[in-house]
Amino acid sequence: MRIKPLGDRVVIKRLEAEEKTKSGIVLTGAAKEKPQEAEVVAVGPGAIIDGTRVELEVKVGDKVLFSKYAGTEVKLDGEEYTILKQEDILAIVE
Amino acid sequence: MRIKPLGDRVVIKRLEAEEKTKSGIVLTGAAKEKPQEAEVVAVGPGAIIDGTRVELEVKVGDKVLFSKYAGTEVKLDGEEYTILKQEDILAIVE
Amino acid sequence: MRIKPLGDRVVIKRLEAEEKTKSGIVLTGAAKEKPQEAEVVAVGPGAIIDGTRVELEVKVGDKVLFSKYAGTEVKLDGEEYTILKQEDILAIVE
Amino acid sequence: MRIKPLGDRVVIKRLEAEEKTKSGIVLTGAAKEKPQEAEVVAVGPGAIIDGTRVELEVKVGDKVLFSKYAGTEVKLDGEEYTILKQEDILAIVE
Amino acid sequence: MRIKPLGDRVVIKRLEAEEKTKSGIVLTGAAKEKPQEAEVVAVGPGAIIDGTRVELEVKVGDKVLFSKYAGTEVKLDGEEYTILKQEDILAIVE
Amino acid sequence: MRIKPLGDRVVIKRLEAEEKTKSGIVLTGAAKEKPQEAEVVAVGPGAIIDGTRVELEVKVGDKVLFSKYAGTEVKLDGEEYTILKQEDILAIVE
Amino acid sequence: MRIKPLGDRVVIKRLEAEEKTKSGIVLTGAAKEKPQEAEVVAVGPGAIIDGTRVELEVKVGDKVLFSKYAGTEVKLDGEEYTILKQEDILAIVE
Repeated sequence: MRIKPLGDRVVIKRLEAEEKTKSGIVLTGAAKEKPQEAEVVAVGPGAIIDGTRVELEVKVGDKVLFSKYAGTEVKLDGEEYTILKQEDILAIVE
Repeated sequence: MRIKPLGDRVVIKRLEAEEKTKSGIVLTGAAKEKPQEAEVVAVGPGAIIDGTRVELEVKVGDKVLFSKYAGTEVKLDGEEYTILKQEDILAIVE
Repeated sequence: MRIKPLGDRVVIKRLEAEEKTKSGIVLTGAAKEKPQEAEVVAVGPGAIIDGTRVELEVKVGDKVLFSKYAGTEVKLDGEEYTILKQEDILAIVE
Repeated sequence: MRIKPLGDRVVIKRLEAEEKTKSGIVLTGAAKEKPQEAEVVAVGPGAIIDGTRVELEVKVGDKVLFSKYAGTEVKLDGEEYTILKQEDILAIVE
Repeated sequence: MRIKPLGDRVVIKRLEAEEKTKSGIVLTGAAKEKPQEAEVVAVGPGAIIDGTRVELEVKVGDKVLFSKYAGTEVKLDGEEYTILKQEDILAIVE
Repeated sequence: MRIKPLGDRVVIKRLEAEEKTKSGIVLTGAAKEKPQEAEVVAVGPGAIIDGTRVELEVKVGDKVLFSKYAGTEVKLDGEEYTILKQEDILAIVE
Repeated sequence: MRIKPLGDRVVIKRLEAEEKTKSGIVLTGAAKEKPQEAEVVAVGPGAIIDGTRVELEVKVGDKVLFSKYAGTEVKLDGEEYTILKQEDILAIVE
């Protein structure tokens, strides 16, 4: 992996609409605020809370739902990724 | 269950108006801000507070009242769900 | 009781104006922000603060003064209730 | 006492202008934000801070200065009172 | 002293412009936000932080610089005072 | 190093567009909010959290992605640097 | 020193433009928000965090960069000083 997120940040790769259909998830409507499905490609070491580092709940490979406009988009070796905080991830899809 | 919420988030399924009448709950007026009745279908592991994970008070199967506009709606296998934080749930209806 | 509030929430039943007069409490003026008298009908288990659950100060049966616009109104079996946080209760009237 | 305030709230009775003169306190100008003199008639058990209940600094009978628009006014047995948080009391006048 | 401030509040008496010149302090410009020099006439017992009362750094008799519009002005026995929180005091002048 | 940042601040030197291409990172679009690549040239001792100094995750020499408008730019010996808080750094690029 | 700052406040003396050139620091552009170079002339005892006083990182004599509009300006014996919180100091210049 080329990008190592800091603290409680996570790097995710947005899944295409086709894959979303395959996994059975169809997000409601076409609203701008609808959550997005993505795969986690890198996780930070976790935030330090009260002097203790708290490991993240998500791990590399997890399929997750996240708020579409959360985080920052970057392009790496031709692929687009999003760096966001774990708190902007709503749920893991299994 | 296909959706595993993170932290203190909960996945709920909104109950139909008919079911509301059956359980005896009638929400006041037709105001936009009125609470909604729903059933909990998945709960997160709880938030980490002061280094300790605090389990959620609601559990799968609970009927709950929640603020109508809280959370994010998703569709899974043709069914609509809402992902919201436990703090947006007002009460359990028994 | 049919409604079990979460955390530091309380369910109260607003007392009628007649009852207010009987208990000797007359709220000042007709201002929109004037507090309301009510009876507590259900209390939550208390909020978790610093890892410890802090029980509520009010208990079922208490007559309380609360800010008129605090909380959310619900109707249950034809009766109207308000769900609000204990911090929106000003005082117990004895 | 008929009103038992919750947490770090205090019930005070506003002192008349005459009494203010007698105690030697004259508040500056006629500005809307000027503090008011009052007598404490009931105190709450104190707020819970870090798991410990912190008793209030003021006690029943104290003469206090408070911000005029702080708190909520109620009428009890024909007398007007103000319920406010202790943090809105500026000082005790001795 | 007739006024006993609560918590981390302090009662100060504003020093006249002449006295400011004598002590060598000349405040810049005539701007509305310029700090004022004053003498501390009463201090509160200190705020409670994490269950421990933290005594104030300033003591009666200290000459201090404070933000002109901080605090509340009161008149006591014909003298004007300001009640403010210690955090609104910038420095002690020696 | 001539600049020693305080607390959890970091001094970084923005990398030129050419170097970005070499490392394989291409930032998406030409949007104003796009992250920037930079090299860390100095790190602060870390913030004090709950009485303990928490060392920074980034170290001198790290290539990092940061929000373009975060921090403050300074010029030192003809070179431009940015001083920002570590929390404004999104990820380390390896 | 005539001014003794409270808590985590620091008194600094702004350095002239000439001196800035001598030390090799040239601040970018002529923007209003550019940082300023100054020398620390007095430091407070530090803020109390979680019951412990945390000493400041800067000491008297340090050359520092700070945000131009941070703090409050005072004049003492004909010299202008700025009183600001340590958190408004970006870095020490060595």
